[in-house]
Order: sequence, then C-alpha cells, then structure tokens
Amino acid sequence: MSPEPETSLTGARGLEPLGIEIPAGVPTHWYNLAADLPSPMPPHLHPGTKEPLGPADLAPLFPMALIMQEVATDRYLEIPQVVREIYAKWRPSPLIRAARLERELGTPARIYYKYEGVSPAGSHKPNTAIAQAYYNAVEGITKLTTETGAGQWGASLSMACALLGMECEVWQVRASYDAKPYRKLQMQTYGATCHPSPSTLTEAGRAMLANDPDTTGSLGMAISEAVEAAAKDPKAHYSLGSVLNHVLLHQTVIGQEALAQLAAAGEEQADVVFGCAGGGSNLGGLSFPFIGQNLREGTTTRVVACEPAACPSLTQGEYRYDFGDVAGLTPLLKMHTLGKDFVPPPIHAGGLRYHGMAPMVSHVVELGLMSAIAVEQDHAFEAGVVFARAEGIIPAPESTHAVAGAIDYARRVTTPEVIVIGLSGNGILDLPAYEAYV
Amino acid sequence: MSPEPETSLTGARGLEPLGIEIPAGVPTHWYNLAADLPSPMPPHLHPGTKEPLGPADLAPLFPMALIMQEVATDRYLEIPQVVREIYAKWRPSPLIRAARLERELGTPARIYYKYEGVSPAGSHKPNTAIAQAYYNAVEGITKLTTETGAGQWGASLSMACALLGMECEVWQVRASYDAKPYRKLQMQTYGATCHPSPSTLTEAGRAMLANDPDTTGSLGMAISEAVEAAAKDPKAHYSLGSVLNHVLLHQTVIGQEALAQLAAAGEEQADVVFGCAGGGSNLGGLSFPFIGQNLREGTTTRVVACEPAACPSLTQGEYRYDFGDVAGLTPLLKMHTLGKDFVPPPIHAGGLRYHGMAPMVSHVVELGLMSAIAVEQDHAFEAGVVFARAEGIIPAPESTHAVAGAIDYARRVTTPEVIVIGLSGNGILDLPAYEAYV
Repeated sequence: MSPEPETSLTGARGLEPLGIEIPAGVPTHWYNLAADLPSPMPPHLHPGTKEPLGPADLAPLFPMALIMQEVATDRYLEIPQVVREIYAKWRPSPLIRAARLERELGTPARIYYKYEGVSPAGSHKPNTAIAQAYYNAVEGITKLTTETGAGQWGASLSMACALLGMECEVWQVRASYDAKPYRKLQMQTYGATCHPSPSTLTEAGRAMLANDPDTTGSLGMAISEAVEAAAKDPKAHYSLGSVLNHVLLHQTVIGQEALAQLAAAGEEQADVVFGCAGGGSNLGGLSFPFIGQNLREGTTTRVVACEPAACPSLTQGEYRYDFGDVAGLTPLLKMHTLGKDFVPPPIHAGGLRYHGMAPMVSHVVELGLMSAIAVEQDHAFEAGVVFARAEGIIPAPESTHAVAGAIDYARRVTTPEVIVIGLSGNGILDLPAYEAYV
Repeated sequence: MSPEPETSLTGARGLEPLGIEIPAGVPTHWYNLAADLPSPMPPHLHPGTKEPLGPADLAPLFPMALIMQEVATDRYLEIPQVVREIYAKWRPSPLIRAARLERELGTPARIYYKYEGVSPAGSHKPNTAIAQAYYNAVEGITKLTTETGAGQWGASLSMACALLGMECEVWQVRASYDAKPYRKLQMQTYGATCHPSPSTLTEAGRAMLANDPDTTGSLGMAISEAVEAAAKDPKAHYSLGSVLNHVLLHQTVIGQEALAQLAAAGEEQADVVFGCAGGGSNLGGLSFPFIGQNLREGTTTRVVACEPAACPSLTQGEYRYDFGDVAGLTPLLKMHTLGKDFVPPPIHAGGLRYHGMAPMVSHVVELGLMSAIAVEQDHAFEAGVVFARAEGIIPAPESTHAVAGAIDYARRVTTPEVIVIGLSGNGILDLPAYEAYV
C-alpha cells in the first residue's frame, strides 16, 4: 500500500487536541510585557486617518484572536492545547552551557545559549507560525500569505500550514530567493507556493519592478505583496513573522523557558542577555521575560540588542511613526526606523534586513530597559566560526550577531558573570554565507 | 577586540572534563550486544593471511582503545566523561510521539520516532565521531582521515575534530560532492579539508580514475583513499563512520535512551522498531539495546531493517567474507555483501550506498534476531513527504526508508501496537532530493 501525500492538504484538520502528554517544561502561557511596562505602548495608527487602529481595521488581514492579542494588557495569555502539543515536539528548546567556548576564550564568565535551531524548521519562527496558523484555521481561514527574507519565516509558516491543513503562499525577497534555493524547496516540501519578490503577481510588485527592474527586493516590498494578495482573497489572511506585538508575545516561550532553565542550573540571575535584532521577534521573545522579571522582582539583567551595522534601525534610525512596508499598506507603527524606502545591502543575515524594529522593542529601548549595539558582518561571521569550532553548532547568520556581542563581552569581563546568548537558529541552509570566512 | 578563529585549530585541546553537570538521561555506558548474543561474532580476518586479526594488525589505522572495543565482550563499556559532556549538548535526543501522523494514517498504533537530527551536524553520526576523535587524540594522533557519502559522516567527524583540536581530511563520493555543495562548506566551516573521490591524491584514486575517468564514485572507493592517506602519515589515523563493531557500539546511546524514554512514556515494550540500513550504524545503535532486552528479559520487540531497493545488501546480498573497500585494503569482514566492486546507482540516500552491511547487523540477521525489507526510492520519498506534512520534520533521505516501512506497517495493523522509527537525521541539506516528489 502506498502512502498518499495528497491527503495532507485537503482542508483544515488537526484543530482538536490529541490528548498526549506534554513535558512540564513547555510553558502554559505566553508572557505579555505590556502588563509590566511603566508606560503604555504607543498605539498603531490607521494609515489613512492617523487615528489609533480599531479591531475592525485589522479584520481583513488577521483573525480576531490575534487582533485582541495585539492590544492585550493581561500579563499571561493561555496557549491553546493544540499549539502546546505541537510545541512539545521540540520544546522546551535546550539551554546549553557553552563551557568549551568559555575555555577557548579564557573567560571567567559562564556562557549559556538558548538554542532554537532544534525546531523542525531550524529557527525560532515556528513558535509564532503555529500559533498564527491555529487561530486563523479556527476562524475558518483556509489560506495564509506572507513574505520572507532568508526564508526561515516562510519555511516555518509553510510547516505550520501543512500541520493545520491550510494553503500557504510566500513572497521571498529576490536576493534570498536567488541565493538560497534550498529554502524554496523546503517550503515546497511542506506544500507551499513560493514567489520571488517583487513579482508580477501583485499591483505593488509590478509598480516596484517598473520603478527598478533589477531590484534585489526587501522585506518591506515583499510585505506589500503578501498583504495585497490576502486583502483580495476572502478566504485568505496575512501572517507576519516579526514586528507586531502578538508575534513577540508568542516568542516569549523562549525567555520563559530560559529563566526556568537557568534556575534549574543553579544560576541566581543572568547578568547579560545578547539577542540578534532584525524585526525583533527573537530578541523580544528571549528578553521580555527577563525584563519583566527586572521590573517586577528587581533583578538586574541587562539586555543587549545586536543589530547588523548594515541595517542599524535601533542605533541609527529615528524613533517615529512609519509604515511597516514599502507601499504604505500597513498601519503606522511607532518604531525605530531607517525609513520605509531604505533598501539594505544584500547582507547574508537576510532575516535582519528590515528598515524598522518591532514597536515593543523600540518602546523598551526608549524606556532605557534595553541597549543596542551594531555589529559588522565580518566580525559576526568570525564569531560564528569560533562558536562552531568550540560548540559544534554552526549559528544562523542572524544569530552570529548575538554571538559576536557575547564573545566580545566575555573576553573583557573579569568576574564570573552569567551571559545568555539567543541562538535563534542554525546556519545549515546559510552555509554559502560562511564560505568567505573559512 | 576581534574573535580569533585560528586559535581553534592549534593542537589537541579539550581532553580534560569541564566538570559541568550532565542530564540524567545521557547514558553512562555504551551497550555491547556481543555480550548477550547466543553465538559469537565471526572474527575479522587479515586480508593477506586470512587469519583472525590481531590488535597489532589494526594499530596503523586505529587507536588501541578502539581496537579493544572492536573485540570487546563486556556488556557495558564506560563512556569517557569528556565524550559525555559533548553528548550532553544534544543528548538525550528526543523520542517524539507521532500523534499527528497517527491521526493522518487512521492507525490504532502508537508511533514514536527517535530523532537524531537535533545534533549539531543534523544526524546520528556525531555519537561515534566524538568518541573516535577523543580516543585518537588521547593517544597523540593529530589528524583523522575518512570517507563520506552524502556528507553526514564527513561533517560529523569534521565537527568532532574541531572540538578536539585535530586536523580532518575527508574524501567524499563524487556523486554527492557534486550534488550537495553545502556539505563541503559545512566541513570547511569546521576547519576540515574535503576532496571528491576518486581523487588524484592517492594511488587507489588514480587507479580508479584510470579505470573509469567518469565514475561517480562509491563509499568503497573513498574508503580506499582515506585508508591509504592515513597509512602513509604516522601522525594520522583513519576513522570509519559505520560498519565496524566499535562504531555500532558508540551508537547504542540511541537505543538505550529510547528504551528509557518509552518506559517514561508508560509503554511496556516496543512491538516493532524500524531503522534504515546502509552501513548499519544507526540501525544497530537503535535496535541492539532492544534486541539485548529481548535476549535477556524475554521481551518480544521485532526489529525491521529498511534498506534501499537499489542497494539491497541484506535482502539480496550473500553472507560471506568480503573487503570493506574496493581496493581490498581493509580486513575481510563476514557480512551481507553485494560484492566490493558493486557500484550502486546514485540514489539520493547517499548514506545507504554501501556494498556491504555491518558484520554485527549481518550476524544478528543470520541468527533470526532481525528481519529486513527493501524499499523503493519513490516510495520512501512519498513517505517522507507524508511525515513532513504531519510532523513538521523533513526526514533525511536515509531516514525515509524507515519511515516508509513504519507507515506501511501502521496502515495495516488493527491493534494499538507500539512502533518506533529511527529518524537518523533531518533532510535539510538534502532538499533537492525531495524536488521530484513535491
């Protein structure tokens, strides 16, 4: 008898819990930093009226459950059981002592890394992809559209859609689409469709191509295309892999687990947390539970956002309202931005090529609860090679920025500080990026 | 201050334990099935004299610790603490309930998969790579040579050598070298050197090229080259990624963990274990602890070896003494073999393209303690796609053979049997192989 792969794609399925046992280490709730902030988040604004958005404004693109999460002020939001059952396939992700790296660096610091590369897609992105696909499927949506840069997000949403029986259509930034053919194959293996962006399939794409036929694309352009496609299809919604509050919310499983794992390892607190900063979802997901603990319990963990010098929204951008995309279709978000028309150079860390920063991360930086540094690409890859040869894992190009920040810091400290690195993914599908450094 | 990757490669290092805490689930010993077999293993023979090999015969290629493990009869052999500390970076690997796949198949069976893809190299191979590099480094060897097919083994040994401060030189079967450029980059990132095989660097390689300049290569050819290179260099040894008893021994961490994890999940015993069969190391590592339990405690777990129909050593080969390589440089091994000169077609599951089978697996099959089936490539990939869309993980092409065996079986059973699949690795670097099936 032959397996029948086509049965996997016939309509939404798998929305009922299976009743399997879930390890105790898998969080039961997402943590919402908004509940603990000393001043409230600036609201997202309607792109036309410039008034704060209402739920109805977002309804064409998002399910109501996610819209409500976007403005939620509860400290904890329960994770649906179906989502937890899928999380349990790889969560809790490991917190690993980098003891061989410590010895290599000759540092007195104790370095840990929270490793999201064990997920089926190889990065932290499935944490929100699964949640978003679930809420959409429950509300009767049968298709999701999205953009992707390096492809980690597109692959993750493709996987989530396969598991929950939905269609998935992805616009991938052309620079990455051409340079990283494996990612497209990964999405297709999950049954998704992947187009290079800008494409001729949307008005936004055609306009961008008319303006510059040789553009290498950007996340901002790809977002415009995916949003337009969803808006035109009543059975489709749009899904964003970073930036928005509800995305960062879903990623807080990372930081919550890390706090529990540090405690289990006998550490009183982390002294410094280094996370890579692109759209902000891995950084926020890792760090917000630490920042919340600082605010509630008086711990003194510092958080350092490590962004690429080639796309320095936090360290060089303005803090103001801006669009999330190039065409100006999205709500206005208060964030650190290089301007919606900024096209970053085609650096290897495709996931960090975004003109803006998550509004929640931006707000937290403005409040002085997080600092930021910019890391040169060469320096990041050098650190990635040091890490790979000491710890075995080849970090994703995005993650190497956090690794570089942590290594530089660890070389300087003279006391046994506790350092946590957010290792957002592995670099297995980004190996050509390492070629110049080995 | 800049990280200095070059310091990672200066001489053996890291041979002292770090004293970090190791999770209880990481085995303390390897399990040696030889201690429980009803009849002893046929000895390996000297290729010249045809007499049983003595330790001195193997000394030019292997460290004494591994030579003694090759003929050990103790039931348990202690794992060095340094090796356990490295294992602990990803071990115990997860045993995951495939509950979504069960629902997809409509089977009453409970299916589990033991997932080795969480290792830094993405497969089970580091389990023995770390051990082999360690024993060699302790005995003063500074360089290892090896062959690799799909590249999983070459990448794993490269990683192990990086962690233990050794040089590594790899001959990769040309078919895979050309088709899978990422693997070479992975090895280079770890600091290793990788050549396509046959190469002009060895006498064996030059002879093969003279015979057939267009050969796509084979594991047997690449072994000849790596063995020759090691034999000529007094500071170098050779390292084999499968087939030999000590390799299978190191892999028994997989099956020991699976037994403990099944018990923790409340399962009395596994009814059937499906493993993919190439050289036999993943299969043996997973299944030998189950077979040992059968022999000692009377459990009735069946083990099914799933080999590719294109290279069917167990189901079509003869059980006799044969060389492990093409040039006839290795000892004679009693095994199921298609003949040392058999060149399998360039199937995608490069790790299963070997003319022979591990002598220990062959012996176990002859004793009736394990059965074998051959799986067509198309059928294996179809099963891989079904699995990916239900469980999220894209299996390695090798692993899809076990998945296919298990899915076919699960579709037929009418009672809640417990099925275990050996998921030897992920297919992220083998995505082009899936292209034809999606």
